[in-house]
Amino acid sequence: MKVLELPLNKYCPIAHSLEVLGLKWNLLILREASFGRTRYAEFLKIGVPTDVLIMRLASLVEAGLLERRPYREPGKRTRDEYILTDAGRDALPILAAFTSWGDVHAPTSREPAVLFVDEATGQPVTLAFTDADGTAVNPERVRIIYGPGAVRPED
Amino acid sequence: MKVLELPLNKYCPIAHSLEVLGLKWNLLILREASFGRTRYAEFLKIGVPTDVLIMRLASLVEAGLLERRPYREPGKRTRDEYILTDAGRDALPILAAFTSWGDVHAPTSREPAVLFVDEATGQPVTLAFTDADGTAVNPERVRIIYGPGAVRPED
Repeated sequence: MKVLELPLNKYCPIAHSLEVLGLKWNLLILREASFGRTRYAEFLKIGVPTDVLIMRLASLVEAGLLERRPYREPGKRTRDEYILTDAGRDALPILAAFTSWGDVHAPTSREPAVLFVDEATGQPVTLAFTDADGTAVNPERVRIIYGPGAVRPED
Repeated sequence: MKVLELPLNKYCPIAHSLEVLGLKWNLLILREASFGRTRYAEFLKIGVPTDVLIMRLASLVEAGLLERRPYREPGKRTRDEYILTDAGRDALPILAAFTSWGDVHAPTSREPAVLFVDEATGQPVTLAFTDADGTAVNPERVRIIYGPGAVRPED
């Protein structure tokens, strides 16, 4: 937790989010969970080593992004599955932001592999900066600035 | 690159983005670069060990997110500074998505530390899913789905 003890990071929401979400495996696990997968064997397919997966699932449960729930198939022992919580669901814009960046800056030869849709209309949606009226703003005009709760390096 | 060789990740833009952006230090370096910082001594303040910082700056340059540019202060040797490229600037929604998640799910006792503003109006902007008309959509209605270029685990 050393990083979060530094004044520069202590009050920064980006740094706090990155404690659990700044890890490739955790975000790939959340990708699978967002597609509705819940089981250990399903998460293994992302390529994560088994011992790492066990630790990462535990860290996501501890951080409140996944919830552990026992299930039992006929004739088998009880196992745990991992259900996306509201906090885990709230990470969807993070996955969408990575998708947008990858689509533009690391394109593959294929058509899009990941889409986001409005389930009420079936229409695709994209991530955008919006103003107070909920209208998209040209991203070239958007700047990151310090808020009133910030600690700056020079403080 | 083993992860990207797996069929499940090979065509996934999230997995591709995470190769360079799925690392806490890289995102904290991009946070500082987005605030306009360019110099090694400034990036050190995020708490990253020096040997790691050197590697991470090199990886961000290689991935096209930062550009190395020599500068020289009077009486000192020439050094490099690191300038955000267009691809690096396009990571701003990723930082905004981490900010939103952290503000809600890892709040501190202080007022917001990071804000995003429309520089033309000075008004705050927030990240939202928008439809084809650029109008914000209720995030509870948004789902992630496979696109036509996807490889699924069962494929």
